[in-house]
Amino acid sequence: MTYCVGLLLNEGMVLLSDTRTNGGLDNIATYRKMFTFEEPGERVIAIMTAGSLSVTQTTLARLREAADASDATGDSSIMEAPTMLKVAEIIGNTMAGVRKDITSRMDAERVSTSASMIVAGQRAGGEMRMFLIYPEGNFIEATEDTPFLQIGEHKYGKPILDRVVRPDTNLIDAQKAVLLSMDSTLRSNLSVGMPLDLAVIKKDECRISSQRRIEAGDNDFAEMSEAWSNALRDSFTQIQL
Amino acid sequence: MTYCVGLLLNEGMVLLSDTRTNGGLDNIATYRKMFTFEEPGERVIAIMTAGSLSVTQTTLARLREAADASDATGDSSIMEAPTMLKVAEIIGNTMAGVRKDITSRMDAERVSTSASMIVAGQRAGGEMRMFLIYPEGNFIEATEDTPFLQIGEHKYGKPILDRVVRPDTNLIDAQKAVLLSMDSTLRSNLSVGMPLDLAVIKKDECRISSQRRIEAGDNDFAEMSEAWSNALRDSFTQIQL
Repeated sequence: MTYCVGLLLNEGMVLLSDTRTNGGLDNIATYRKMFTFEEPGERVIAIMTAGSLSVTQTTLARLREAADASDATGDSSIMEAPTMLKVAEIIGNTMAGVRKDITSRMDAERVSTSASMIVAGQRAGGEMRMFLIYPEGNFIEATEDTPFLQIGEHKYGKPILDRVVRPDTNLIDAQKAVLLSMDSTLRSNLSVGMPLDLAVIKKDECRISSQRRIEAGDNDFAEMSEAWSNALRDSFTQIQL
Repeated sequence: MTYCVGLLLNEGMVLLSDTRTNGGLDNIATYRKMFTFEEPGERVIAIMTAGSLSVTQTTLARLREAADASDATGDSSIMEAPTMLKVAEIIGNTMAGVRKDITSRMDAERVSTSASMIVAGQRAGGEMRMFLIYPEGNFIEATEDTPFLQIGEHKYGKPILDRVVRPDTNLIDAQKAVLLSMDSTLRSNLSVGMPLDLAVIKKDECRISSQRRIEAGDNDFAEMSEAWSNALRDSFTQIQL
């Protein structure tokens, strides 16, 4: 499985993904699930992926190829598309196309080719937008009412987001929120695993403002996780039944 | 959906269930999902149910009928069975039988007849035992390593249990833990709803030691929920990134 979460806030966007993939419980590997495309100052796009690795890798490869092609147009390249909505359409159509190509071969084996993506981005002169792209290629968008999107193993980490994330949450609290949401998921589900990829895209910068990989032994993350555990236990003790 | 959770602790067992059932989003009703059988001082059995209402209701009706039959034996009646293991077997077999009867009629409609149950009990002279009965009638048992069992929409409420429930958790804290676990689930999933049924079976009492229904407007529950929200938000603010 996978857990990826994206927040769309007034000050910017925060993205976090894990890196664990598995083909069965005895075939576990680490793969990056966060991919960035940028022309700094002009356009930034970040994509997080969940589901069939062969589908998401092929989709990313096709998107990269189309963006690098000498004859790239606004209809084929996410780096030339006139709007973020068009970017989401291109990604959705590409993924649906890849699934179609692969599914016919997979049906006999009953292997799932389901996959989903979170796409976040901004182009100069446009608004920040964030989409969740479904396996069929259609999508929904994050809004002020629902300022976060999740893919993969999303349930364990949802309660903390429901409680603390609002559009006016600042970017530091937002990073805390996604990391604690991931921490709950890591504790409860073995198929989600370190290291993590964390990225921040500040509003109107049209670039990846910061990005870091948090490794399994990361001290800051371990301390935060420990502090949160202690705080939860203390709060629990104080609550009156 | 449903959320039911049972804790097997050194001091006793704590059970909590919601009451919401739905056949589609536009057909929502309230049904009890916790059922008790007792011969106080001799034997107590509590059953919580999730899944197809027609399967669980019919299963409970057959169990009740078999227990009330004048020729009830240890092979057919959960009130006569010589061990809690045998009780779990009778319940599993009864449910599997009901599913078999119903499934042949349901297949054409593609309606699920999946159901699961948590069974908790003790007979005089025996140990407290708690089982999770799967749709096929097989079961697993709560142990010291895993002192809680959940059925239905279990993911949202698992992180709090993972953090605070140990076999030596006292019965007051245990009730807090299941109520907070339910609170997280209620917030994140519409298909789980009030009122709630909470029961406590103290060790070696072989009776339902306490049982209460918590209605939608319950002040104590609302206050606890509010206090927990505030505590979480305060803790969140204090955590350093």
